[in-house]
Amino acid sequence: MPALKKKRSVREYISGFVDGEGCFSVSFSKRNKLLVGWETKPSFSASQNQDRAEVLSLMQRYFNCGFIRRDFSDKTLKYEVRSLSELVEKIIPHFEEYKLLSSKQKDFALFAKICRLMQKGKHKNSAGLRQVMKLAFQMNASGKRKYTQSAIIASL
Amino acid sequence: MPALKKKRSVREYISGFVDGEGCFSVSFSKRNKLLVGWETKPSFSASQNQDRAEVLSLMQRYFNCGFIRRDFSDKTLKYEVRSLSELVEKIIPHFEEYKLLSSKQKDFALFAKICRLMQKGKHKNSAGLRQVMKLAFQMNASGKRKYTQSAIIASL
Repeated sequence: MPALKKKRSVREYISGFVDGEGCFSVSFSKRNKLLVGWETKPSFSASQNQDRAEVLSLMQRYFNCGFIRRDFSDKTLKYEVRSLSELVEKIIPHFEEYKLLSSKQKDFALFAKICRLMQKGKHKNSAGLRQVMKLAFQMNASGKRKYTQSAIIASL
Repeated sequence: MPALKKKRSVREYISGFVDGEGCFSVSFSKRNKLLVGWETKPSFSASQNQDRAEVLSLMQRYFNCGFIRRDFSDKTLKYEVRSLSELVEKIIPHFEEYKLLSSKQKDFALFAKICRLMQKGKHKNSAGLRQVMKLAFQMNASGKRKYTQSAIIASL
């Protein structure tokens, strides 16, 4: 007789995996064509060694969005979602229900707030962009940034 | 009225976290005092940046064994269990019930097999140690080892 199969909660599993390997980030790129001069780029990603990308594929199927690409800088594979509507409709609701248990949760909360401001178009004018930046620069203190907050503000 | 709190499955969360950040390993140290000349050292560990060690503490409470230490080589914190009896009684049963979903599961299966052979004392004679080593050297292909399998066998 086969052993009873326990129903797995892939939702919790994904949150646990992302607590370790995931990253919520918001970066800014100079774009002279945009009225405000800067593009705001939110991204959710999770990395894994190339030889065991199973959980990345699982996430792509589960969230039904995003793409998997090679990260040549560190020879990993990366699952990434950059579309604002998919972040707001698919990614953020998951992590609001299955919250991260480490302090990465704080970064996620800032990320969710920024994406929702962006959904209202706030990042497209200079006052709104300042608000978005103020939140973004509180995230991922250990991450690298091309531009400082003051450099961006000075250019607005 | 407070929102209904959903019951979380920390078990699945831990397996997801360990799929990303965990490591099952078996190393060998030269010990002339031992009859067989080699000590077999199984270890389960999971790493995290020092600024967010919450999940490591959660694991320590959940498994009710192991210790958290600084890893000076990469400036992380590491939760680690090295006691054979705790590995066999607390760690292995968890990951047999809440299996890893990536190919790290293969390393875990070899690890579990080795720990159970050790529980029977197999690693204490040269024939058993060969069997243990054959399994151990199939694990974590990308990891570094101080001794090659042939160097150990040559010394038996």
